[in-house]
Amino acid sequence: MTTTQQPSTLRVGMVGYAFMGAMHSHAWRTAPRFFDLPLRPELAVLCGRDQVAVKAAADTMGWQETETDWRSLVERDDVDLIDICTPGDTHAEIAIAALEAGKHVLCEKPLANSVEEAERMAEAARSAEAKGTYAMCGFSYRRTPALTLARRLVEQGRLGEIRHIRAQYLQDWLSDENVPMTWRLDREKSGSGALGDIGAHSIDAAQYVTGLDISGVSALMNTFVHQRPLAGTRIGLGGTGADDGRTGQVTVDDAAIFSARFDGGAVGVFEATRFALGRKNSMRLEVNGTRGSLAFDFENMNSLEFYDGSTDAEAAGFTTINVTEPVHPYTGNWWPSGHGLGYEHGFTHQVVDLVQSISGGTTPSPSFDEALRVQKVLHAVERSAADESRWQWTDLPL
Amino acid sequence: MTTTQQPSTLRVGMVGYAFMGAMHSHAWRTAPRFFDLPLRPELAVLCGRDQVAVKAAADTMGWQETETDWRSLVERDDVDLIDICTPGDTHAEIAIAALEAGKHVLCEKPLANSVEEAERMAEAARSAEAKGTYAMCGFSYRRTPALTLARRLVEQGRLGEIRHIRAQYLQDWLSDENVPMTWRLDREKSGSGALGDIGAHSIDAAQYVTGLDISGVSALMNTFVHQRPLAGTRIGLGGTGADDGRTGQVTVDDAAIFSARFDGGAVGVFEATRFALGRKNSMRLEVNGTRGSLAFDFENMNSLEFYDGSTDAEAAGFTTINVTEPVHPYTGNWWPSGHGLGYEHGFTHQVVDLVQSISGGTTPSPSFDEALRVQKVLHAVERSAADESRWQWTDLPL
Amino acid sequence: MTTTQQPSTLRVGMVGYAFMGAMHSHAWRTAPRFFDLPLRPELAVLCGRDQVAVKAAADTMGWQETETDWRSLVERDDVDLIDICTPGDTHAEIAIAALEAGKHVLCEKPLANSVEEAERMAEAARSAEAKGTYAMCGFSYRRTPALTLARRLVEQGRLGEIRHIRAQYLQDWLSDENVPMTWRLDREKSGSGALGDIGAHSIDAAQYVTGLDISGVSALMNTFVHQRPLAGTRIGLGGTGADDGRTGQVTVDDAAIFSARFDGGAVGVFEATRFALGRKNSMRLEVNGTRGSLAFDFENMNSLEFYDGSTDAEAAGFTTINVTEPVHPYTGNWWPSGHGLGYEHGFTHQVVDLVQSISGGTTPSPSFDEALRVQKVLHAVERSAADESRWQWTDLPL
Amino acid sequence: MTTTQQPSTLRVGMVGYAFMGAMHSHAWRTAPRFFDLPLRPELAVLCGRDQVAVKAAADTMGWQETETDWRSLVERDDVDLIDICTPGDTHAEIAIAALEAGKHVLCEKPLANSVEEAERMAEAARSAEAKGTYAMCGFSYRRTPALTLARRLVEQGRLGEIRHIRAQYLQDWLSDENVPMTWRLDREKSGSGALGDIGAHSIDAAQYVTGLDISGVSALMNTFVHQRPLAGTRIGLGGTGADDGRTGQVTVDDAAIFSARFDGGAVGVFEATRFALGRKNSMRLEVNGTRGSLAFDFENMNSLEFYDGSTDAEAAGFTTINVTEPVHPYTGNWWPSGHGLGYEHGFTHQVVDLVQSISGGTTPSPSFDEALRVQKVLHAVERSAADESRWQWTDLPL
Repeated sequence: MTTTQQPSTLRVGMVGYAFMGAMHSHAWRTAPRFFDLPLRPELAVLCGRDQVAVKAAADTMGWQETETDWRSLVERDDVDLIDICTPGDTHAEIAIAALEAGKHVLCEKPLANSVEEAERMAEAARSAEAKGTYAMCGFSYRRTPALTLARRLVEQGRLGEIRHIRAQYLQDWLSDENVPMTWRLDREKSGSGALGDIGAHSIDAAQYVTGLDISGVSALMNTFVHQRPLAGTRIGLGGTGADDGRTGQVTVDDAAIFSARFDGGAVGVFEATRFALGRKNSMRLEVNGTRGSLAFDFENMNSLEFYDGSTDAEAAGFTTINVTEPVHPYTGNWWPSGHGLGYEHGFTHQVVDLVQSISGGTTPSPSFDEALRVQKVLHAVERSAADESRWQWTDLPL
Repeated sequence: MTTTQQPSTLRVGMVGYAFMGAMHSHAWRTAPRFFDLPLRPELAVLCGRDQVAVKAAADTMGWQETETDWRSLVERDDVDLIDICTPGDTHAEIAIAALEAGKHVLCEKPLANSVEEAERMAEAARSAEAKGTYAMCGFSYRRTPALTLARRLVEQGRLGEIRHIRAQYLQDWLSDENVPMTWRLDREKSGSGALGDIGAHSIDAAQYVTGLDISGVSALMNTFVHQRPLAGTRIGLGGTGADDGRTGQVTVDDAAIFSARFDGGAVGVFEATRFALGRKNSMRLEVNGTRGSLAFDFENMNSLEFYDGSTDAEAAGFTTINVTEPVHPYTGNWWPSGHGLGYEHGFTHQVVDLVQSISGGTTPSPSFDEALRVQKVLHAVERSAADESRWQWTDLPL
Repeated sequence: MTTTQQPSTLRVGMVGYAFMGAMHSHAWRTAPRFFDLPLRPELAVLCGRDQVAVKAAADTMGWQETETDWRSLVERDDVDLIDICTPGDTHAEIAIAALEAGKHVLCEKPLANSVEEAERMAEAARSAEAKGTYAMCGFSYRRTPALTLARRLVEQGRLGEIRHIRAQYLQDWLSDENVPMTWRLDREKSGSGALGDIGAHSIDAAQYVTGLDISGVSALMNTFVHQRPLAGTRIGLGGTGADDGRTGQVTVDDAAIFSARFDGGAVGVFEATRFALGRKNSMRLEVNGTRGSLAFDFENMNSLEFYDGSTDAEAAGFTTINVTEPVHPYTGNWWPSGHGLGYEHGFTHQVVDLVQSISGGTTPSPSFDEALRVQKVLHAVERSAADESRWQWTDLPL
Repeated sequence: MTTTQQPSTLRVGMVGYAFMGAMHSHAWRTAPRFFDLPLRPELAVLCGRDQVAVKAAADTMGWQETETDWRSLVERDDVDLIDICTPGDTHAEIAIAALEAGKHVLCEKPLANSVEEAERMAEAARSAEAKGTYAMCGFSYRRTPALTLARRLVEQGRLGEIRHIRAQYLQDWLSDENVPMTWRLDREKSGSGALGDIGAHSIDAAQYVTGLDISGVSALMNTFVHQRPLAGTRIGLGGTGADDGRTGQVTVDDAAIFSARFDGGAVGVFEATRFALGRKNSMRLEVNGTRGSLAFDFENMNSLEFYDGSTDAEAAGFTTINVTEPVHPYTGNWWPSGHGLGYEHGFTHQVVDLVQSISGGTTPSPSFDEALRVQKVLHAVERSAADESRWQWTDLPL
């Protein structure tokens, strides 16, 4: 046996180690255990500003070394890929620097906090790709097997021509007015609220599954709670505010609603909110075509509902596909049929596909260009909401 | 036993005997068998333009006599109530004439084909009520026990302050392009398409359940199929077009989508379509408040989902209430728990409540004024859709 | 128009007017309004022992005359059919007398309180049928459209060879120990408890849907609550006992569980209980074959779950058939797709089919012979439960 | 920082590396990344008979070294715990040797292939525990958060006195007659078929959740397919047989059904089969008590249905608890609410609890004694099935 049979390593440097950092670490650790990867990921360097905290996190999450300045990380010769898990206001700067330094990039969604940033990032990605360096945006829901299967069924023509898309992303962790401030409620950090945080997933998923782009929107945005406690106890995404009376200003939308037209004539309706009491992570997508329909709810993430219009009328109906069969996307590498995957598997699959793209020299998907299209929709939504819900085409100049 | 103990009769004259006529006949026949009514309904006169057909229908549906001109019906002394089951373009004329003739009126929804007509009808109803004559509009879904219970839970304060309403009314009987023309696709007869036919139910249900009025909307309307066969075989609401090549123009919307603001700060999103392949009569309503949430889908009409935010966190979740208990609205008069009601029961309950209002001298609900409020929303939706989805307040002058 | 075009009448005399009496009255009244029947049912005579009560019931339910002695009813020349809605201990006597008097018979289930009675009834039915008089047993669940469709799918071979049947009938109206005594808890009246009351439905449905007979069983029966208040307030099937301390002895099973073998090699498992807290009328049936599977729960009575093993693996799963399409059994005579039927429709369909059998001169189904087969299973279950659960074949001599 | 702050390691040696081996490896790797463990697990030695294969597996799964003889493994000084992932016929020998060598043991379920073996193992575990060495049996379903929560709700008294348990474990991977032989179909290796493979999980889960032991059973077992291809392509648990005509004899049950009595008066009904076409891993448990009820289906593993009998009647029903909240068992260490866990998390939680027991010096649960109780039920089921389903008490001498 010669060493050439061992796959080369892909040395990862990751910036940020909160919720998304823990998740990405798990994905990098786990992917090579279940998938036969052409490059073996190595959790090389974890980067965060607080030296003590980042060391503790690196130990818990399994990273070999740490850095406290992302610029130093980007300059290291012993790192091949930069994984960006920070709030959106830092994405553009880090990603562009990394790509210019010849590092592959995985960047959390949404790509940026503005179309202008996203365009610069997409431009950087195109330039980098010409030199064999690749960039992917982390719209991980695409790689939930049920949504990957949804895309496959559309590609097979089993839905016919698409007419309706309805997408809801419903959470409730802000429903309690006493949940404290977080960077996700600060427009400077996050760009927008429910719209960018979760609505962006719905936009990407709708465009991905149908293969159609959103051409225009009319939107309504709303903020229910304008002041929140500054500090308190964080639990999950939410938590409980402190009693000290200090509050901060919520500067983002709590809910975003918009109607949309897609290329090809389909119409869509979208809603994103973190105030839907009782809905924990109900990322729903429903698509109706001339030949079939699909329905998905992430709270039942291992299932896809499919209506096949070609079934005899007596037996037609929505079929609950338990998307855990060997024939389904990704699932054959995991457990036997019906044994169920969880939220993290989408991230592991993301790593699998990214590594294969890098190794194979193909553009990863979602590319920064695809993510830019999402950004343009986010922008059009905000413009419409600010102008009496008037229709906005997504391809207008800024 | 003296004859005074027998309830007086309420002699009904009904105009129209298609889908809604068959349904109303069933309701008039059945209500006194299961509910103790203060007036005993009598299926006195059925009215339709085709003498042979109306006689056959009267025989099948159990009506004693027939008329072929609604004006003659309205003038009869031996009729106490006029039940209007015709397309919307005739509602105003018949209802106003009947009310002026001192007949109570039950009018199918939507109340009219325009706000102008609806305002005249509401005015006539107010005048009539001053003389002890009552009018009700047939938004029958309100009396589906699960939706009546939903209203009750909101009234009890169990949802707290309402923040979100999402209402979808999804059918698919027009999805096939070969389904033939019908009066429901002719703007002259029906006023609008999916919007007035089924969207009106969603608007009424949303306002009824939450007790809040819609103050403004932004809308998108779409027609997918513009030409349809003129004739063919009717099956259910749809059917199969003939092969003779003759087609008619669809002059209404196939789908209507709108966002809304409600009095009090709630935001809503509505969708009505008859092109949601696989959805048969999926009239869905979901409401999120500060203390609780509700979800309903008519395809599971005996259930209401209720999230009670006051439940301990460990055991909280959406509760599927099987709305068939003696304690639930209407259901104690029917079968034992869990034995299930059907679509027609809402109509029977409508008759029960109408008869009790007439006997008790109270305004029936939905009154023509309530139905007028729905009409104003329909109108605002059409104006917004015709003006680049720009926001329209519902209380603007015409 | 000549009188020969009018269908002849079928004059019905009904014994009993409690829960089942109200239901059968509704069915007789309603069937000719929605189905084109060859004989027009007439609610001729209602029979009950209490003259005042039976007159009041006849008025409410729409019967023309009353009798207080079933023997007088059976002897009347102006009655064509006797509908037996009394407790099981009276079925044999009434049914046999009626058949001998040349009256058609519809008898509520279970057919009798013993195999011996059931055999005499079946014998009487066979003799009567030779003279053109017909008898049917009221296992009405068969005519829930979803279960009729289930039978049709099995007949079409879409399940292949049947391997597994699991049937549960779960109610909870006896779960509270304070619910008062009723004839359903008195072995003298009812024959058995959960077993005969609801388990009998499961047995009939399992045999009907699969087309297979149960050949043997092993059983466990249990009584949880042995003493109950004698009187109190009846609500639905249950209610609240009085505080006077007087109690009666429950002499039947509260729950019955049995495993079964079917002709052809399938195995089954059955459970009937009125102590499954939270389950209101959960009559579930699940069937697995070599080519397909079915699942049904009466609490979602308008749906049938069907797994079609011939679907491509990627899209296979349980399909929720909304059994309300024109192509489905019975439903084309009711409302448009998706509008939902209720519990009572099975009884109306039962009347439709019975009238057609009588008019057409064919044996109604379930015949008394079919009901006798259910009775034999009930008997074998009781014998096994009384003998350490030892296996009992159903075809053994008594 | 001193070294004493670092947790000591727990050096694991694992025997077997098929489905369960891959799963356990994942659990050992992952547990310390998300839970703060008092001992840090080290994937020290993987053991398998085929040297090349075991080395490849060790590399993929992350084990440091390999052994080809479990006896050598057990004797190593640098291993603290033996994890047994082999077929049941080897459990007793390995586990007893390991315990005698002072190694902690985690043994896959069922504990053994006979009560006699299980008793010896339990005896060995008791002796070992006296010396501070611990043994756990891997009934991992207990640590699915929804089932752990179920147990907690019962302990809180929210179900009251238990009356009914119904447990089904339905799979379909053997439904196709062409699926090839496997050790799971060979009585010598596996002890029994569906009964021990999956029915054992149901037995353990039922006893665990209710806190009640099964006292007696009556059973029916069946084998549908007696001959299967000897070789072919393995896919998941099933696969496709080769065409060479060689077949092997299935020597186990394909399906096992039994009724049961529990200590305290509850009755239960169990079914385990791998022939329920369309059910992939439907491990269902339903419990009815005097005050509440529970229902679970592993195909929706993140949900638990709970009926709280103390809810006001108007709002009562089964609540779907999305068991992903911080307050729920284990889930606070993973993702935000609603983001969903998968099958593997139960195994990770098993490792967490085992490590904490070992470190804290408490008996792990399920102990070998608990697993022995399951074994006794399995044995009673087989005896009853072999004796005309006659009742068997579980505490009889062998």
